[in-house]
Amino acid sequence: MASMELVTKKRFMLVSGSGNEKLAQEIADELKVSLGDMSLSTFSNGELYVRYGDSIRGADVFIIQSHCEPINDRIMEQMIMIDAAKRASAKRITAVVPFYGYARQDRKAQGREAITAKLIADMLTVAGVDRVITVDLHTGQIQGFFDCPVDHLTAVPLLAEYLGEKIEGDITVVSPDAGGGKRARKFANILETMGTDTELAFIDKRRPKGTFNESVAEEVVGEVDGRTCILVDDMIDTAGTMCAAAELLKARGAKDVYMAATHGVLSGPALERLGSASVKEVVITNTIPVPTHAPSTKITSLSIAPIIAKALDHVFEDASVSEMFHGDNYQ
Amino acid sequence: MASMELVTKKRFMLVSGSGNEKLAQEIADELKVSLGDMSLSTFSNGELYVRYGDSIRGADVFIIQSHCEPINDRIMEQMIMIDAAKRASAKRITAVVPFYGYARQDRKAQGREAITAKLIADMLTVAGVDRVITVDLHTGQIQGFFDCPVDHLTAVPLLAEYLGEKIEGDITVVSPDAGGGKRARKFANILETMGTDTELAFIDKRRPKGTFNESVAEEVVGEVDGRTCILVDDMIDTAGTMCAAAELLKARGAKDVYMAATHGVLSGPALERLGSASVKEVVITNTIPVPTHAPSTKITSLSIAPIIAKALDHVFEDASVSEMFHGDNYQ
Amino acid sequence: MASMELVTKKRFMLVSGSGNEKLAQEIADELKVSLGDMSLSTFSNGELYVRYGDSIRGADVFIIQSHCEPINDRIMEQMIMIDAAKRASAKRITAVVPFYGYARQDRKAQGREAITAKLIADMLTVAGVDRVITVDLHTGQIQGFFDCPVDHLTAVPLLAEYLGEKIEGDITVVSPDAGGGKRARKFANILETMGTDTELAFIDKRRPKGTFNESVAEEVVGEVDGRTCILVDDMIDTAGTMCAAAELLKARGAKDVYMAATHGVLSGPALERLGSASVKEVVITNTIPVPTHAPSTKITSLSIAPIIAKALDHVFEDASVSEMFHGDNYQ
Amino acid sequence: MASMELVTKKRFMLVSGSGNEKLAQEIADELKVSLGDMSLSTFSNGELYVRYGDSIRGADVFIIQSHCEPINDRIMEQMIMIDAAKRASAKRITAVVPFYGYARQDRKAQGREAITAKLIADMLTVAGVDRVITVDLHTGQIQGFFDCPVDHLTAVPLLAEYLGEKIEGDITVVSPDAGGGKRARKFANILETMGTDTELAFIDKRRPKGTFNESVAEEVVGEVDGRTCILVDDMIDTAGTMCAAAELLKARGAKDVYMAATHGVLSGPALERLGSASVKEVVITNTIPVPTHAPSTKITSLSIAPIIAKALDHVFEDASVSEMFHGDNYQ
Amino acid sequence: MASMELVTKKRFMLVSGSGNEKLAQEIADELKVSLGDMSLSTFSNGELYVRYGDSIRGADVFIIQSHCEPINDRIMEQMIMIDAAKRASAKRITAVVPFYGYARQDRKAQGREAITAKLIADMLTVAGVDRVITVDLHTGQIQGFFDCPVDHLTAVPLLAEYLGEKIEGDITVVSPDAGGGKRARKFANILETMGTDTELAFIDKRRPKGTFNESVAEEVVGEVDGRTCILVDDMIDTAGTMCAAAELLKARGAKDVYMAATHGVLSGPALERLGSASVKEVVITNTIPVPTHAPSTKITSLSIAPIIAKALDHVFEDASVSEMFHGDNYQ
Amino acid sequence: MASMELVTKKRFMLVSGSGNEKLAQEIADELKVSLGDMSLSTFSNGELYVRYGDSIRGADVFIIQSHCEPINDRIMEQMIMIDAAKRASAKRITAVVPFYGYARQDRKAQGREAITAKLIADMLTVAGVDRVITVDLHTGQIQGFFDCPVDHLTAVPLLAEYLGEKIEGDITVVSPDAGGGKRARKFANILETMGTDTELAFIDKRRPKGTFNESVAEEVVGEVDGRTCILVDDMIDTAGTMCAAAELLKARGAKDVYMAATHGVLSGPALERLGSASVKEVVITNTIPVPTHAPSTKITSLSIAPIIAKALDHVFEDASVSEMFHGDNYQ
Repeated sequence: MASMELVTKKRFMLVSGSGNEKLAQEIADELKVSLGDMSLSTFSNGELYVRYGDSIRGADVFIIQSHCEPINDRIMEQMIMIDAAKRASAKRITAVVPFYGYARQDRKAQGREAITAKLIADMLTVAGVDRVITVDLHTGQIQGFFDCPVDHLTAVPLLAEYLGEKIEGDITVVSPDAGGGKRARKFANILETMGTDTELAFIDKRRPKGTFNESVAEEVVGEVDGRTCILVDDMIDTAGTMCAAAELLKARGAKDVYMAATHGVLSGPALERLGSASVKEVVITNTIPVPTHAPSTKITSLSIAPIIAKALDHVFEDASVSEMFHGDNYQ
Repeated sequence: MASMELVTKKRFMLVSGSGNEKLAQEIADELKVSLGDMSLSTFSNGELYVRYGDSIRGADVFIIQSHCEPINDRIMEQMIMIDAAKRASAKRITAVVPFYGYARQDRKAQGREAITAKLIADMLTVAGVDRVITVDLHTGQIQGFFDCPVDHLTAVPLLAEYLGEKIEGDITVVSPDAGGGKRARKFANILETMGTDTELAFIDKRRPKGTFNESVAEEVVGEVDGRTCILVDDMIDTAGTMCAAAELLKARGAKDVYMAATHGVLSGPALERLGSASVKEVVITNTIPVPTHAPSTKITSLSIAPIIAKALDHVFEDASVSEMFHGDNYQ
Repeated sequence: MASMELVTKKRFMLVSGSGNEKLAQEIADELKVSLGDMSLSTFSNGELYVRYGDSIRGADVFIIQSHCEPINDRIMEQMIMIDAAKRASAKRITAVVPFYGYARQDRKAQGREAITAKLIADMLTVAGVDRVITVDLHTGQIQGFFDCPVDHLTAVPLLAEYLGEKIEGDITVVSPDAGGGKRARKFANILETMGTDTELAFIDKRRPKGTFNESVAEEVVGEVDGRTCILVDDMIDTAGTMCAAAELLKARGAKDVYMAATHGVLSGPALERLGSASVKEVVITNTIPVPTHAPSTKITSLSIAPIIAKALDHVFEDASVSEMFHGDNYQ
Repeated sequence: MASMELVTKKRFMLVSGSGNEKLAQEIADELKVSLGDMSLSTFSNGELYVRYGDSIRGADVFIIQSHCEPINDRIMEQMIMIDAAKRASAKRITAVVPFYGYARQDRKAQGREAITAKLIADMLTVAGVDRVITVDLHTGQIQGFFDCPVDHLTAVPLLAEYLGEKIEGDITVVSPDAGGGKRARKFANILETMGTDTELAFIDKRRPKGTFNESVAEEVVGEVDGRTCILVDDMIDTAGTMCAAAELLKARGAKDVYMAATHGVLSGPALERLGSASVKEVVITNTIPVPTHAPSTKITSLSIAPIIAKALDHVFEDASVSEMFHGDNYQ
Repeated sequence: MASMELVTKKRFMLVSGSGNEKLAQEIADELKVSLGDMSLSTFSNGELYVRYGDSIRGADVFIIQSHCEPINDRIMEQMIMIDAAKRASAKRITAVVPFYGYARQDRKAQGREAITAKLIADMLTVAGVDRVITVDLHTGQIQGFFDCPVDHLTAVPLLAEYLGEKIEGDITVVSPDAGGGKRARKFANILETMGTDTELAFIDKRRPKGTFNESVAEEVVGEVDGRTCILVDDMIDTAGTMCAAAELLKARGAKDVYMAATHGVLSGPALERLGSASVKEVVITNTIPVPTHAPSTKITSLSIAPIIAKALDHVFEDASVSEMFHGDNYQ
Repeated sequence: MASMELVTKKRFMLVSGSGNEKLAQEIADELKVSLGDMSLSTFSNGELYVRYGDSIRGADVFIIQSHCEPINDRIMEQMIMIDAAKRASAKRITAVVPFYGYARQDRKAQGREAITAKLIADMLTVAGVDRVITVDLHTGQIQGFFDCPVDHLTAVPLLAEYLGEKIEGDITVVSPDAGGGKRARKFANILETMGTDTELAFIDKRRPKGTFNESVAEEVVGEVDGRTCILVDDMIDTAGTMCAAAELLKARGAKDVYMAATHGVLSGPALERLGSASVKEVVITNTIPVPTHAPSTKITSLSIAPIIAKALDHVFEDASVSEMFHGDNYQ
């Protein structure tokens, strides 16, 4: 006999880095599978070590890692997991990145800067990734930083529907800066389909050159007086911009102020600021683990796990992802 | 003698595709050089043929091509010019792209679309380009589609200063859609440094799914009553959005409406629409040749040539480009 | 359960660009499948837009596009279709290119020219193609311009058998230039297996330097007096060379003159020239759509669809392509 | 019907270059398959020609080639076989390299040298290999010269168990140079698990700069007096170092001296030297064919075929390779 | 005039990451240049930000970064600095890496591990590095992980000459494990050229599988009784192996024990262990900053700056690096 | 001072592999330089070793190697020389390949063959070549196998002028097969400019399938009776085709028969065949060393050295190569 013949099978393997193991477990539970066995350790000089506990030869491996703090360790860990999977003969490697780090450094805003979001894409690619699944990128153009397929999920319907059902009366969706109008419009569209009268507004502010994470809100453009306002952004990092915006909205007559964002980075003074801000509720998702000491009365974290799990399932089965959500949750 | 030694020289060579030869000539004139001799021809089946008239061995070649209509021929011509330069041993090849085609297809807005702006970047790269110089990309993230250096020039100060000197009284800078707030803010910043009282506004509109180039303006967000409005965008294509926006602004009490955009694509019904629109003046630059039958009383085309020429000069001499403009005209 | 397991299936998906939709439909009919649903449109500034109507995730996608006029638009459209398929997670992408554009620019004939046929190969590759199927390349070496597999089909047996059955008596197969002897020999081999007495000849001509598509026939080398002549080439473009050759053959005593070529480019003055030429019949295939106003009494177009369909079927089923044709129709 | 659907099958295809056809046949016999039909020939100017006799479209092809003498022809032949397999649409190509050539040139020992072991890896990669299976690389770091998976098998247990069962009494495992301590330790570990009292030693020698394959043994470090010594290395090339070491060990009181190495390169004066050396038995494997005139009383060649066959089987079936050997025979 | 011509100049630019700024300053002082102005900052979520203070267009940029703790941040910072330099049109980018991180993960020791040292090389390459300068890699094969030139400097002569002048009487150079014999031999060679009678020895130990940084010394192979011992390794990390070896050497009669290593990683319990170990002096270099609380009476840090500075100077001037050191300090 | 500045110099370095050292020396003599010092040696197992004797850091290195017998060793040697030059920091590496091996395997003539000429190009590229200079490639399309610049020199004028001056009376330039008409035409063009009346002819032959280097001449197409014939090809390998053609030409009345070819491969029975063939003179060049036992009365070898030397000089000085020959000697 000159040759043997076998029917090809594909095997689904879900593993998690140390970035957001709780979310990974939720996704596994949704899919009714166990997480693959991983050895993840750190030597005393800080070098990471990764080893797969089970054979992954020929498997369709999904490596979940959220790029949360300490961010460079998370990114590096995912790179090493990808490299190990490649060398262990995985058939296809998908990086599942609920929160994509360095996404704000997506262009040269000034001369002699890096485009680190592209660098991360190049690093994932050189490590050996075949596909990326991610959620609400800072800008959609980051998809184009990859040559491989990117499935770009969105939590905007999740957030909007949650608030749409909660809030009564007229709503103004407010972008905290002049550049976020498109996201606000998308958010508002969902509210409108729920029958709410919705307006857009934005905060027109200036950010002193050379400073970061700190900003000064200036003036509201759009109608907010007597209306419930929802400040919408892709992430809440130090919460400085958002909280200043909330104060301004209140000062301009807003009835209540809510905040909604997919990614609760909540770094530095964020929790403190949100705690004392004139905001009724902050709605985020669990792409990043919510700090245990976060004031749960004010901060609501919705689970992104069902959305990601559904996407993984369709990707594994080669079913359409864009259509599985009927246009929702996929960009 | 085992070896010969020579002092290395670099030779500046400027050539132009057929996309915008007038602009190329203006740039050459600014730099006091002649355009390099190019054979550009088209066979009867539409295949293009390119040959350099002069030796370019070892030269620092700058290939100017604006991706104007017929756009695919322009892009293809530039690719072939790059390939020929690479094979003719040019030392460094810079694609000068005053108007970058397909820039609006910079992300997957729906499933199963291409990211053609990335494809163009990949094609330029595989053809052999070492650097790109371009003007006012639709989104700055396109810089990250390249691995080579991109010098990203801007005409916003040129446009803003022209109008700032012309218009008296209060101005509202208006973005024709919710996503253009950042560009409007940048435009307004320049007016403010000229001492003008400036407000921002935007048109909140919905675009029926699956249609293109056609849109319906809905409502103005921001203060426009009794103020001079400047509608600002990166390009004016069919002018449908812009003209509808102008009507709305007039209906909402705007004193006068101006339009400003770097790229005057002016395709299809654009000239007709602009001719009959309630707009006082349309200010563009010559990144794309202005149609000879354009109503010159209404459409003003400023020359981008001095800005590009200055950049070429600094690139050739390895001087800083970002600083040559003192922060102006460079992003 | 740590993992799910699935039997892998592959799904055949055939789509067509706008280059030669009739041929694509014929191929689909041969295979008893429907063409996949494609949105192909053009914005008013000439930018193309492509979207797949159906999910192609995991599919084995075959993208048919003939590089006929307007050639750069066709090429660009195929690139964009490939890019969209790649980003939509197609498992394998095969470019089916019945007529490969720019194939004559396959080497530097003079200094400072491009090798555009290689550039097209590089562009297809960077867009994301995994395999190419094409017909009668201008030179077989173009296969080597690709790193991926190329299935190179040939219509020579189709053309030769058609004419071999039609023509009675001795035949001289004539190459219209000194470089086409190999193709003529291949054509003659088939006639010989059909029992026809066959000779070879070629036209020895000079083409003034720097001109294209125009040429001057000079003299026949080989025996043509009193014999039926078949002028054989890979393509008939402007038909200038071919028609001048036909006149010369008649002047040198040829009984009848036929022309045979795989690709009927028929650009510029071709139809007019062929109409008035001393040629009995021009036999081509439908790799390029035959103009509707072509004189059907003189021009015969044979369908390449069965050959391509058979190849697609074998490629999809991983059966041998070279052997399916028993050496015929495959190079 | 818009699409056809098929269950994917994979077909195992094993072919052999001319480097070690006997080993290839043994591997095929172990797997109960036939070797695929290959045309391998050499033109009179030394150019090699390769053609697959059977269709390999869609097959999982394993190309066995040992880089034995004439080494450059063997390497080139494997490259050409890979290129042909790639262009013939093999689904996956695995280079099986029982002996990897140029492995000793794995770093720059002096300035202005090549790293030829990396060059071979790059050449295999550019030719189109998807995976490599090899045995006892000179240094394990060569795995990292590849971006594709490398399955690194080892014959150390095979050799150690053979000698462990043969030799009675205390053993010292001796590295012929200061750099081989790790390999000797690994060898000793196996002997220890067999219950033998084992010590390590090494020969501390100096090699005059700029000379190769020739060396001068200097002194033994470690206990050898009255003990049976096994000289262990990855390969025996000219046997100069090994034989000098054997003499020294005898002079220092060793009872008996054995030699063990995975690869019996046995070039130049090797057989003559081994014939007259104070060595009881030389144990190698058949990664390289043993010369027919080798003194079979002294040289024992163990078959590596069962180990390689087992690996191929597991690779084809996507079963774990590292675990199939329970840690043995895999590094 | 069709072209301008300029004499090409190259500009040397030295910048430092935050890994070892003191060493960078020493190198700059040796070269009598200033360090280039860099903005290096960290956002509150841990993302790094990098910007060059001066124009680096056309410059020959050398980016010094030692991969010391926190190691992933250091590596990431260097990547971003390279990316920014590439996009800012540096002519050539050299990564100067006095201590190369993850160098011990240079091969798969077990199945399903990564080869992280190769991953780091690939990441540096994809970020845009043109050349690497580094010191005493864990294994020389890592040079082959790069396709670009690597200048591999060594501190072995520096360390050996320092101790050779200090120690009187016979010396045994001891490798702390069976694999380090080559490095010990190199060290011994230098002592021998200084006229010292030198022997080699090594510690034959077993390391329980699956544990790291912890090990159990077992027995000395070689002559140490009554001799001064120098334990030689490329780095001292947690110092566990080294300190256990020192105890064993003392127990076996060693007069004094010294330790020498290029890289003083000194992580975790290292300082404590060294403080209480039976070791007279620990000699390292400043490739990694020595902790300020290190017991300076026991730990001597020699400066590598003159060696690196000399290499940078020669690289910039295109002079030979291997010969500048007359074979010393270059591998 | 933040930076040092230097005028960039380039240094010409010419080295030779062992393929055709005499030609390399002639080229060096023409250029009045010495050949760079190279260590080229072969270990007893056939592995090659290469080291540059002088520093080549920053140099413009030209590596001359003709791919003559033993061809795979020659190719491998050139690869290793390129790799070593790359790692030794050469600024630019040019492979000078007077005879390019495997050039006849430039396309798949049948299924399941390799395209080895492309593989050689890919291997040179991956080894690190920046440019190629070669002479009379079997087909010009091989230029397109490279992405780097290829300077394609030709010896056709050299050969044609030599014979044109020697032969009196009418000449027929004969291609030994149907595919060589273009080359014959080029040869004839030169004779015509010298005032000779020239005709073309070719041998129409069939080559039994599956055989190589052996062929059967069949019939002459074209006028040869009473005329001097020059058989023209790119190379003479076993001379079987050429000698059979010569017999046929004599049988058909040719006055005298000459042979002209750029490359005298002269493998296997070539010299014997040429010795007894009805051919007056065989004119070749020294791209391949002429065997010392070749019958010098019949075989004339013209030196290609002046042509290559001139090209190297112009390449080094960035002067035009195509124009240096006024269209001669460059394709």
